[in-house]
Amino acid sequence: MRLRDLQRSDRAALETILRATNVFQDHEIAIALELIDADRSLGYCFFVAEVEGRVAGYACYGETPCTEGTWDLYWIAVDPAQHGHGIGQKLMRAVDEAVAARGGRQVIIETASKPAYEPTRAFYLKYGCQEVARVPDFYARGDDKVIYARKLS
Amino acid sequence: MRLRDLQRSDRAALETILRATNVFQDHEIAIALELIDADRSLGYCFFVAEVEGRVAGYACYGETPCTEGTWDLYWIAVDPAQHGHGIGQKLMRAVDEAVAARGGRQVIIETASKPAYEPTRAFYLKYGCQEVARVPDFYARGDDKVIYARKLS
Repeated sequence: MRLRDLQRSDRAALETILRATNVFQDHEIAIALELIDADRSLGYCFFVAEVEGRVAGYACYGETPCTEGTWDLYWIAVDPAQHGHGIGQKLMRAVDEAVAARGGRQVIIETASKPAYEPTRAFYLKYGCQEVARVPDFYARGDDKVIYARKLS
Repeated sequence: MRLRDLQRSDRAALETILRATNVFQDHEIAIALELIDADRSLGYCFFVAEVEGRVAGYACYGETPCTEGTWDLYWIAVDPAQHGHGIGQKLMRAVDEAVAARGGRQVIIETASKPAYEPTRAFYLKYGCQEVARVPDFYARGDDKVIYARKLS
């Protein structure tokens, strides 16, 4: 597996992966694709994971506006056919290292409390993210926003 | 005092008010102005308060992406020369009513824990917002993100 920067030609493969995860709703996939399509001057950064020349996942992150040293992990997705090989962890570590190299103090991740995201939340906790806050009923009634932080040393 | 929609010609007066509050930093004012300048198709909504024909303050709000019924109050600012006349409260109430009319369940407000924002936080609490979450060291070391929610009935 290797990690590289996003290329325009990755879009179709990433859309396929986003849909294959069966986690994201259509309007969420639309926003993920907007960030993939966005002008790079807007500050969205990417790592794409490639396995044997095929796109296997990606992470999208960026500096959080109006903060000193806080960055956001906006999206992370791995091809379900490639789950269990540590690709997600490698993407997370690459983001941590890139953020730390640019002077970042922490990476913030926002996700939903609904059952469909349970494996996602378990992944973040296993990786070492701390749940730092929760906004009740944020996404919908009964679906909170859960905020994780990963402090970088 | 009357409330009306944003007009292009309000920009200079709003920039003057944002600076006069002595609360916002330059990069925050730049983002507030970006929203004022943004194409309205992006979903940012405004109320401008006018006193005797002069702009006295404004609120900027919008539907929170990827949520059902959650809206964000992005900015609210009142000319310091006009403080104490209830303009801020009237702007808040207008936002609540507009959000409720469009089926919104709650308005979320994010602000900073630093001392400069103490009057702002007191204003939100007095108005009836509830502090629902706090992200430590979000804006900077020692400057948390404080998240308020105002449930609409």
